[in-house]
Amino acid sequence: MPLIYFAAGAARWPAYEAPLKAALNEAGIVAELTPDRPADPASVDYIIFAPGGEITDFSPFTGAKAVLNLWAGVENIVGNQTLIQPLARMVDPALTAGMVEWVTGHVLRHHLGMDRYIVNPDHIWDATCPPIAPERPVAMLGMGELGLACAHALSGLGFPVTGWSRSPKSISGLPSEHGEDGLRRLLKTAQIVVLLLPKTPGTENILNAERLALLPDGACIVNPGRGALIEDDALLAELDAGRLGHATLDVFRVEPLPKDHPFWSHPRVTVTPHIAAETRPASASRVIVENICRAEAGQPLLHLVDRARGY
Amino acid sequence: MPLIYFAAGAARWPAYEAPLKAALNEAGIVAELTPDRPADPASVDYIIFAPGGEITDFSPFTGAKAVLNLWAGVENIVGNQTLIQPLARMVDPALTAGMVEWVTGHVLRHHLGMDRYIVNPDHIWDATCPPIAPERPVAMLGMGELGLACAHALSGLGFPVTGWSRSPKSISGLPSEHGEDGLRRLLKTAQIVVLLLPKTPGTENILNAERLALLPDGACIVNPGRGALIEDDALLAELDAGRLGHATLDVFRVEPLPKDHPFWSHPRVTVTPHIAAETRPASASRVIVENICRAEAGQPLLHLVDRARGY
Repeated sequence: MPLIYFAAGAARWPAYEAPLKAALNEAGIVAELTPDRPADPASVDYIIFAPGGEITDFSPFTGAKAVLNLWAGVENIVGNQTLIQPLARMVDPALTAGMVEWVTGHVLRHHLGMDRYIVNPDHIWDATCPPIAPERPVAMLGMGELGLACAHALSGLGFPVTGWSRSPKSISGLPSEHGEDGLRRLLKTAQIVVLLLPKTPGTENILNAERLALLPDGACIVNPGRGALIEDDALLAELDAGRLGHATLDVFRVEPLPKDHPFWSHPRVTVTPHIAAETRPASASRVIVENICRAEAGQPLLHLVDRARGY
Repeated sequence: MPLIYFAAGAARWPAYEAPLKAALNEAGIVAELTPDRPADPASVDYIIFAPGGEITDFSPFTGAKAVLNLWAGVENIVGNQTLIQPLARMVDPALTAGMVEWVTGHVLRHHLGMDRYIVNPDHIWDATCPPIAPERPVAMLGMGELGLACAHALSGLGFPVTGWSRSPKSISGLPSEHGEDGLRRLLKTAQIVVLLLPKTPGTENILNAERLALLPDGACIVNPGRGALIEDDALLAELDAGRLGHATLDVFRVEPLPKDHPFWSHPRVTVTPHIAAETRPASASRVIVENICRAEAGQPLLHLVDRARGY
């Protein structure tokens, strides 16, 4: 009987205990599931992990067949030298759906200029119409699972979406750019930029002062990816100057965003509290259990992390 | 050479002159196009019309083959007893696209609870997540050209959309209700209600106090249809009581919305200035000219108004 150690934080256990048990049951797996560190770490077969959980040293878990991350982002675990077990990312269909909703909603909000109607103390009736979506180029930086899903949703609404990734990708129906030259070309025309890149040494501060300066006047930034993708001071300088239109940020270098951070009170910044890609227990539990099934059956794991690439 | 009289208001002529001429040119039609009332009304072949335009009495235009409305709504012309010429509504692909964007944007805004992040003076970091779209039932009242397009877009994002129309309609892939019983059933479960009905004697005040009371607590209303579809006082009472969540209204009984109307300052109402279904000159001109082509070729007009139904 496999032993599954839920090492994703005691605070999360109440939300996950029932869905995980239900998913195991549904899959016909008889297993022991515990939120407590087993006396003998070597007896653990699977580790369910989230940053902030109990484990920093994976070396005593000599029998573990997989570490199953509850989150899509793995930057807080992928560099852990004690981790030699296979590591799987979360690819939760509900998480993807939630991300698509959040990104589509905020892109439409900026496209339609909604804020001026939501906050309109002078009761101004100004019937100036925005252009329609085909006239609003969107750049999707990052064309992984989430970026691709968002790009397709926006493209379905008529936005001309161009994807960007570090290495070339061929995606049916979506134009895409890659590499440094491609990024510069893309930023010069994008009126809305969505950031859905993983955080790696190669993507940190990818939107720095020089690259932000390439964007057209009034462009908006939507960042549900990782806080470190943007150089905060450079973004604030462009917003202060009125050069960029707005930034809607869901992720930050420090979370919760410190009370005295200038993002909070900046009139051109909207802070959302890391809600764009929330893992939902029911669907995430089914994904975790599917991987346990595969491992038990000797099949390759889904959503394996490439440790060299870092995601 | 057909004579086309642009009777849609002198204020609109500058925006339409060039697109109409371009569309005529593109279609190979040699015509005379004028914004001035011809000395001999009987010589006019086509009338391009918008409410507020120059014509109230159509009877002198004895030679007119069609009245081509610039707007989708025809309630300000359909009851005109002097109008015996065929009347065509505007079905502008850009207008439909703009409506889909506005409706999808505001439905997502309410679904995601965006306003609490856009206006967050206390800098509250509350990571409570909304449900995902499949858990948020949407009612689409009105399944004409615009309602159907919006229903498909929302359904594509995962919302369970149910359509409603006065008489039964079978729409592939979308559940629908009809008639009084169907409306009552639908309102009891809808968390977001979108109004895209035409204004007719049968739809006026369709959301009255009794029907608004059927909605679940916290439900939101999104009205880009016609102001008269909702009984204003009943809506305000439900919002004042905190029973309904929010109303986003793009259309009103009197427009611009009078400065002293309670909608303006109500914390649970967002006013947008009749921008959801703005006709765009370039695409609207092509639609107008397509109908002129058809009439010149003796083919039936597109988007003919059924005078008995009133739309």
